Amino acid sequence: MTILVTGASGFAGSHLIEALLANPQYAHADIHGTCYGNAGFLETILPKNTIHAIDLTDQKATEALIQTVQPDWIFHLAAFAAVGKSYDDIPKVLQNNLLVQTSMLESVRKHAPKARVLVVGSAEEYGWSEPGELPINEDHPLRPVNAYGVSKVAQDLLGYAYFKSFGLDIVRVRPFNHIGPRQSKDFVVPAFEEQIARVERGEQNAIHVGNLDAIRDFSDVRDIVRGYILLMEKGITGEVYNLGSGKGTRIKDLLDAMIAKASVPIPIVQDPDRMRPADIPEMVCDNGKAKRLGWEIKEMNKDSIHKSI
Amino acid sequence: MTILVTGASGFAGSHLIEALLANPQYAHADIHGTCYGNAGFLETILPKNTIHAIDLTDQKATEALIQTVQPDWIFHLAAFAAVGKSYDDIPKVLQNNLLVQTSMLESVRKHAPKARVLVVGSAEEYGWSEPGELPINEDHPLRPVNAYGVSKVAQDLLGYAYFKSFGLDIVRVRPFNHIGPRQSKDFVVPAFEEQIARVERGEQNAIHVGNLDAIRDFSDVRDIVRGYILLMEKGITGEVYNLGSGKGTRIKDLLDAMIAKASVPIPIVQDPDRMRPADIPEMVCDNGKAKRLGWEIKEMNKDSIHKSI
Repeated sequence: MTILVTGASGFAGSHLIEALLANPQYAHADIHGTCYGNAGFLETILPKNTIHAIDLTDQKATEALIQTVQPDWIFHLAAFAAVGKSYDDIPKVLQNNLLVQTSMLESVRKHAPKARVLVVGSAEEYGWSEPGELPINEDHPLRPVNAYGVSKVAQDLLGYAYFKSFGLDIVRVRPFNHIGPRQSKDFVVPAFEEQIARVERGEQNAIHVGNLDAIRDFSDVRDIVRGYILLMEKGITGEVYNLGSGKGTRIKDLLDAMIAKASVPIPIVQDPDRMRPADIPEMVCDNGKAKRLGWEIKEMNKDSIHKSI
Repeated sequence: MTILVTGASGFAGSHLIEALLANPQYAHADIHGTCYGNAGFLETILPKNTIHAIDLTDQKATEALIQTVQPDWIFHLAAFAAVGKSYDDIPKVLQNNLLVQTSMLESVRKHAPKARVLVVGSAEEYGWSEPGELPINEDHPLRPVNAYGVSKVAQDLLGYAYFKSFGLDIVRVRPFNHIGPRQSKDFVVPAFEEQIARVERGEQNAIHVGNLDAIRDFSDVRDIVRGYILLMEKGITGEVYNLGSGKGTRIKDLLDAMIAKASVPIPIVQDPDRMRPADIPEMVCDNGKAKRLGWEIKEMNKDSIHKSI
């Protein structure tokens, strides 16, 4: 069995590779990973000849990769992923995420039409919710409020269209927020951690924050990637599955718990520049569909989100 | 008042310009139109200095246009529009329709943030329906089965995101099939007409057709463009409105009525090459929301679709 993980040097990608390597079921699988630029951590867990440095917006290069590797499974994680930063260059975020999707799906259609592909969307596809619409199940309307969310809708529905039009074996997933080791500082928890450490070292006086009232659904990245594997094993072709803890955490509570563990008092400064143009008040996942497939939350089932940080 | 119509040399665009010119309410408006390549028919209805030949995927050019024209209203119709052809180069269709949208919305955000923009989606955004889900209202799930449909979802939801994130005055519309004078032969009715004429002239023996069982909702293009104007006058910012007759017509019945009027018998040949990879069995519009705003169907209210051809 040959497995390809795109975006393998990224946050979820590297945890997914680790999870596959640790799973006896995939002990004899050929596991390949792609990275864009530096492979970094990936080099410590995969042999060099299974790491492919590639720009997946380049369709010709992507076609060559799929032709060569001939994967049975493709976990297609590669994408521009930071919501906050996605406001800086909206056309670029959209174009990048669209191109990594068309070039992969076209490559699979042409060169590996039997491969099973995990198309990775996001809770940001649901975007805006009215209070009565929570928790968010897979039938929730798509109301993305930012370019990242729109790009994920396009990726997700393009997967659906290729399933419907060309019979590709596509499974779609919409993960909610996930945290854990090696996450980039463009995301909320590592960004808070870094600032708190700076205050502790006396390099800044206070932590600067955006909207603390927002409620988000945080999972441990290791639960999320186990969910990805489960969906490839058991997901129904063409279907879409939410992955999230099902519990809402207010960003303020998350920050308070982190500050409580700090070695010095951490003053909080609200910074208008860190507020997003449209911040969704509350996102909580209805994970019933994935649970019915057998998904279990292991990493955070006993502990609160705060203890996992 | 200054009105800009993009895609003004296209099918709906040229009818929209005619409708605006014929409407006493806009007699004193400055009406501008964009075209990509040849202005064609547009030159017979608009003065040359209000016709702008422009590639709207070029953001710099689009910004310059919006800065110069300073429109109060923008009917943003420009897009690659033929579903059948959209299978030929999927990445190109998606990229083109995405770029015309990001470059226009970014231009409006930067240079005309008070302008009202009509974002034109499509019934193809709804795509696949289960029988119990008809007629299709605005809350119908988005299940596009082709690249054109996905590109229209992206355009539509990007309009929503710019409304939500930047407060732009966006009204969104999802028109169902429309027909009438000057439609391109990439669409079903003109394509049938052309083939029937060829059989009549003895240039071919039979009409070659794809799926005749599909049911679609056809409106006269003149009703659709009056709907566009009404939505700009009365539509609620951020909202989306369907435009369609509310009646389903089987393609076979449409063809039979056309053949009945032909001067010679027209044999029908089913051609697998003309079948789309995923053809949606039935699409019928629930137009209640637009009707509650005052939209009336004038061109086809007495006649059947067949008489209007």
